[in-house]
Amino acid sequence: MPMEYPQDGFWLHPDALVDAECIGKGTRIYAFSHVMAGVTIGEQCNLGEHVYVETGAVIGNRVTVKNGVQVWEGITLEDDVFVGPGVVFLNDRYPRSRFSVGAGDRYQTKGWLEPTVVREGAAIGGNATILCGLEIGRYATVGAGAVVTRSVAPHTLVLGAPALVHSLICACGKPFAGDGREYACPHCGRAYAVEAGVPRPLHAT
Amino acid sequence: MPMEYPQDGFWLHPDALVDAECIGKGTRIYAFSHVMAGVTIGEQCNLGEHVYVETGAVIGNRVTVKNGVQVWEGITLEDDVFVGPGVVFLNDRYPRSRFSVGAGDRYQTKGWLEPTVVREGAAIGGNATILCGLEIGRYATVGAGAVVTRSVAPHTLVLGAPALVHSLICACGKPFAGDGREYACPHCGRAYAVEAGVPRPLHAT
Amino acid sequence: MPMEYPQDGFWLHPDALVDAECIGKGTRIYAFSHVMAGVTIGEQCNLGEHVYVETGAVIGNRVTVKNGVQVWEGITLEDDVFVGPGVVFLNDRYPRSRFSVGAGDRYQTKGWLEPTVVREGAAIGGNATILCGLEIGRYATVGAGAVVTRSVAPHTLVLGAPALVHSLICACGKPFAGDGREYACPHCGRAYAVEAGVPRPLHAT
Repeated sequence: MPMEYPQDGFWLHPDALVDAECIGKGTRIYAFSHVMAGVTIGEQCNLGEHVYVETGAVIGNRVTVKNGVQVWEGITLEDDVFVGPGVVFLNDRYPRSRFSVGAGDRYQTKGWLEPTVVREGAAIGGNATILCGLEIGRYATVGAGAVVTRSVAPHTLVLGAPALVHSLICACGKPFAGDGREYACPHCGRAYAVEAGVPRPLHAT
Repeated sequence: MPMEYPQDGFWLHPDALVDAECIGKGTRIYAFSHVMAGVTIGEQCNLGEHVYVETGAVIGNRVTVKNGVQVWEGITLEDDVFVGPGVVFLNDRYPRSRFSVGAGDRYQTKGWLEPTVVREGAAIGGNATILCGLEIGRYATVGAGAVVTRSVAPHTLVLGAPALVHSLICACGKPFAGDGREYACPHCGRAYAVEAGVPRPLHAT
Repeated sequence: MPMEYPQDGFWLHPDALVDAECIGKGTRIYAFSHVMAGVTIGEQCNLGEHVYVETGAVIGNRVTVKNGVQVWEGITLEDDVFVGPGVVFLNDRYPRSRFSVGAGDRYQTKGWLEPTVVREGAAIGGNATILCGLEIGRYATVGAGAVVTRSVAPHTLVLGAPALVHSLICACGKPFAGDGREYACPHCGRAYAVEAGVPRPLHAT
C-alpha cells in the first residue's frame, strides 16, 4: 500500500468509493469510505476510514475528518478544520422515517434541512454531537463527547452536554487567558484583543 | 449506480453484504452494511452505510436506520421507526469479554440478553445511547446525544444524560402543549387526550 | 461463511483487511475492519465489524472490540478487556488538522501523543468517550455513554459525563458492597479487601 503523497493528484485506498470528481491535490481517502457524486473536496485533506460524505456537503482545504464520521448534505467544513473520530453531525431537527405515516409531506421539499458551518481552523473532539442549524466559529474547539446545541463563538472552547463555554482558545488549540487588556497564548505567543468576550487575533494566523 | 426504487424487490449497493433472505419490497441497503442470516426486514426501509444487523434483530416496515448503527440481537424496531446516525444500542448490561477469566459461564446461555423494543413511529436522535432491557414508546423521540437508561413513555421527548422527560411530542415529531383539557399539535393539528401524563391520539395517526 | 473457530490459526472475514502479521490463534476479525501493519493481536480475540486498529496499538489475549471502534496508536488493551460498540478513544488532547495553519509544527514529532492503557479485564460500555493519557484500572467498568476525563481506579464503576465514581465492581462485572471489613460479590462470591477505596482481590481472579 503506497503511502507517499502523490505529486499530481489525490490518493485513494483501493477499498474507498469515490463517486465525486473534484478531489484536491494531495488529498487522501482511506478504506471503506464513500464520497458521493457532486461533492467538492479541497487539497491536502485526510478522510479516515468508514467516512461518508453526502452530496451537498462542502469540504475545504487541509481538512481532517477522522474515522466513522458522516458529513451530510448541508454541512460545510471550511479550510483547516479538524473533525475527530465518531463525531456525529445532524441536519434535521425533527427527523422521522421518510416513508412513515408520521412524516407526512415533511420530505417533499428541503424545508427540513438546517445547514451547519464549521468555520476555518475549528476542531471538534471525538464523539461530539453537533445539532443542526449551527455555526462553529473560527478556531473554536468542541470538547470530546460534547453535545453542541447552540452556535459556538470564535476562539471558544465548549465542553459538556449540553456544551457550555469553558475558556478562550488559541489558533494553536491551547487555552489562553489575559488581564482584560492583553491576551496572549502562553504556548505559541499569538496575541488577541478580546471584545465582547470574543478574541480577535492581532496578527494574521 | 441506479438509484430508482425497484418495482419488484429491494435495492442493494454492490458493496453491501446481505446474508438474510427476507428483505421487503422497496427496501434499500447501502454500501459497507451487513445484514446477517435469518434477519427479516420489512418494506420501504432505508439502511444507510456502515450499518450492521445481527441475527435475532427485527426490523419492521418503513424503518430508517442511518449510517454507523448496529442493530443487535434482541433489538426490535417496529414500523415507521427512525434511528439517527451513530446511535448505539446495547443488549448486555454487564458485558465482559466472552472468553475472559471474569466472564466465567456468563455466555453459556442467553441469560445475559436484555431485549429492547422501539415502538411504532419513534425517533432516536443521532449519537444517542440506548441502554438495554428498555421500551421506547410509540412516537416517542430521544434527543441527539442522549443516554437513555429508563423506558420512555409514548409521545414523550427525552433529552440529556441520563435522559429525562422534556415535553410531549406529536406523531409528526414536533412538541405540543395544552391547557389540561385539550391538546393539539400546532404544526399538524393532530389532537390528543393526555391521561396520567401520556398522550393518547384522539384519531388514527 | 464458515464460522467454526479455527484449530490452527485465526479467522478473517473475506471483507476484512489485515496488514498485520501477528494475529493470535483463535482470533476472529469481521467484515469491513482493518488492522494496520505492525500491530500485534493476541489469541481468542473478537474484533467486530467496522473496527480500525492503527499501527502502534497493542491488543492482548481474549479481548473483545465491538463494532465501529478505532484503536489508535498509543492505545493498549490488556488481556480480557471488553470494548463496547461505538466507543471512541483519543490520543491527542489538542487536535488540529495536520496540514493546517494552526497546527504549526505540532505534528513534526510525536510529542502530541498521550497514550492510554486499559488494564486487564476492564470493560468499556458502548458509545463511551475515553480522553487521552489515562489508565482504566484492572476490572474497572465504564458506563455506556460516559465521557472519561480522568483515570479510573481498579474494580471501580464510573458513569456520566464527565464520568464519576458510582460504585465498586467485581471481576464478574457486577457491583458489590460491604460493611467496611468484608466485601464479597453477591453474584459470584469473589472476596475483596478494600484499601483506600480500591478493592484488592483476596484470591486469584
